[in-house]
Amino acid sequence: MQAFQKLQEATARNNSVLCVGLDTELSKLPGHFPREKESIIRFNEEIISATKDCVNSYKINFAFYEQYGRHAFGLIERTIAAIPKDIMIIADAKRGDIGNTSRAYANAVFNELKCDSVTVSPYMGGDSVKPFLEYEEKMVFLLCLTSNPGSRDFEYLNSGGMPLYKHVMKRSMEWADEKRLGYVVGATHPSELAELREMAGGHAFLIPGIGAQGGDAEATLKANGAAPALVNLSRAVIYASPEKDFAEKARETALSYRDLFNSVRNT
Amino acid sequence: MQAFQKLQEATARNNSVLCVGLDTELSKLPGHFPREKESIIRFNEEIISATKDCVNSYKINFAFYEQYGRHAFGLIERTIAAIPKDIMIIADAKRGDIGNTSRAYANAVFNELKCDSVTVSPYMGGDSVKPFLEYEEKMVFLLCLTSNPGSRDFEYLNSGGMPLYKHVMKRSMEWADEKRLGYVVGATHPSELAELREMAGGHAFLIPGIGAQGGDAEATLKANGAAPALVNLSRAVIYASPEKDFAEKARETALSYRDLFNSVRNT
Repeated sequence: MQAFQKLQEATARNNSVLCVGLDTELSKLPGHFPREKESIIRFNEEIISATKDCVNSYKINFAFYEQYGRHAFGLIERTIAAIPKDIMIIADAKRGDIGNTSRAYANAVFNELKCDSVTVSPYMGGDSVKPFLEYEEKMVFLLCLTSNPGSRDFEYLNSGGMPLYKHVMKRSMEWADEKRLGYVVGATHPSELAELREMAGGHAFLIPGIGAQGGDAEATLKANGAAPALVNLSRAVIYASPEKDFAEKARETALSYRDLFNSVRNT
Repeated sequence: MQAFQKLQEATARNNSVLCVGLDTELSKLPGHFPREKESIIRFNEEIISATKDCVNSYKINFAFYEQYGRHAFGLIERTIAAIPKDIMIIADAKRGDIGNTSRAYANAVFNELKCDSVTVSPYMGGDSVKPFLEYEEKMVFLLCLTSNPGSRDFEYLNSGGMPLYKHVMKRSMEWADEKRLGYVVGATHPSELAELREMAGGHAFLIPGIGAQGGDAEATLKANGAAPALVNLSRAVIYASPEKDFAEKARETALSYRDLFNSVRNT
């Protein structure tokens, strides 16, 4: 199924815009897990099983898996295999390079790893993003205004009366429609998010920054309105408890965020 | 050995600023190689063996390896193992994310894969780059002005009389000195490269864009002068011949570029 359609169907079926981030690190697993790579898979499987009916997507942060060297992509593949086919999978890999290299990255995440979508950095411009947009069945989430403090360094630079992050959105909207292109917009900037939502029409926003990063959930969801969204929680959900009840607590936390988000977006 | 020192010693010992890019793809190997993953390692070993005394560095483009899914990082590890310890290794991975994620990427490329340096995208700002700069023994090559056509889309945006790529250099020079921080500056923009060299003092430039991308070698080396450089050639060297003489032809091509670069930088 085409990725944007999968996102919309999962959002409706589970009545949820929650995206759970599988930022799994061995050192942070509950104490009863043996400190071995296999535990990452078992932890992810339990988290997915406990939350799959209350999310519209899972986000796999490649960095945490790449720390396992030669086992990295095997762990990613097996995590993907544990996710139901009707939930959107985001390769959170922040890729982007010259055309023939981006083509190889796209082949890796879409054909080999079978992700539905990927996060891409806009710095290098159109020919670094377009190879990812050529896949009709897939989606790109382009970095626009990120949730971290460093977003102030370059993303806000004013050029011709408009910050860089708006140039990124405006220009890239010429490259693809909402079926293939969404944006990463951080929850730590709710008023900017409202302006970007005005510009973006029906393009989906992948929204990190709530939870550990301190973004305001209500202001963010209000700013996004009823438009397509994937509101990411990672550490706050998957590490909700350091005990054997981690999956149950992850589910409770996921449900409470889902309901909080719904209480705003449905009014 | 600290990465920048390793770079300088290899440059002197081999009298070379040539960086060979191991952009190895199974479909492009000479016909006598079986079409199986193991051939990538044997091809890389032969290329490295034939060129290791005429380069100052090897650049491993992660994209091409990531296409092999679960085998990706194993192929990267084994390629790294074939490179002599006194030649600089660049993880050309264009990474960069929020702080705790960049910390994981840095752990992956520096501790796990044992690369000397990594290419990083500046879009997300200081806290996305600094975790890579915390390694005293390693180096970052920050994207500044890239060699591709898309560099015109955002990198040239003027803010306060200065293009984005100069803001990136100016701001990031506050984060680290030349031992830990270099820049990616494309050979397709020689006059801009000359201006950036003025700003950058002794920071090393990783310079792609000569060869398949059409950059002007003489203008580029002249613009860079005697400052530290890693001038990248990938496809033009490693695929110099589609026959059994590929390693010999790669060496001849590498030597001719090394000599061309030296004829400019030593005058």
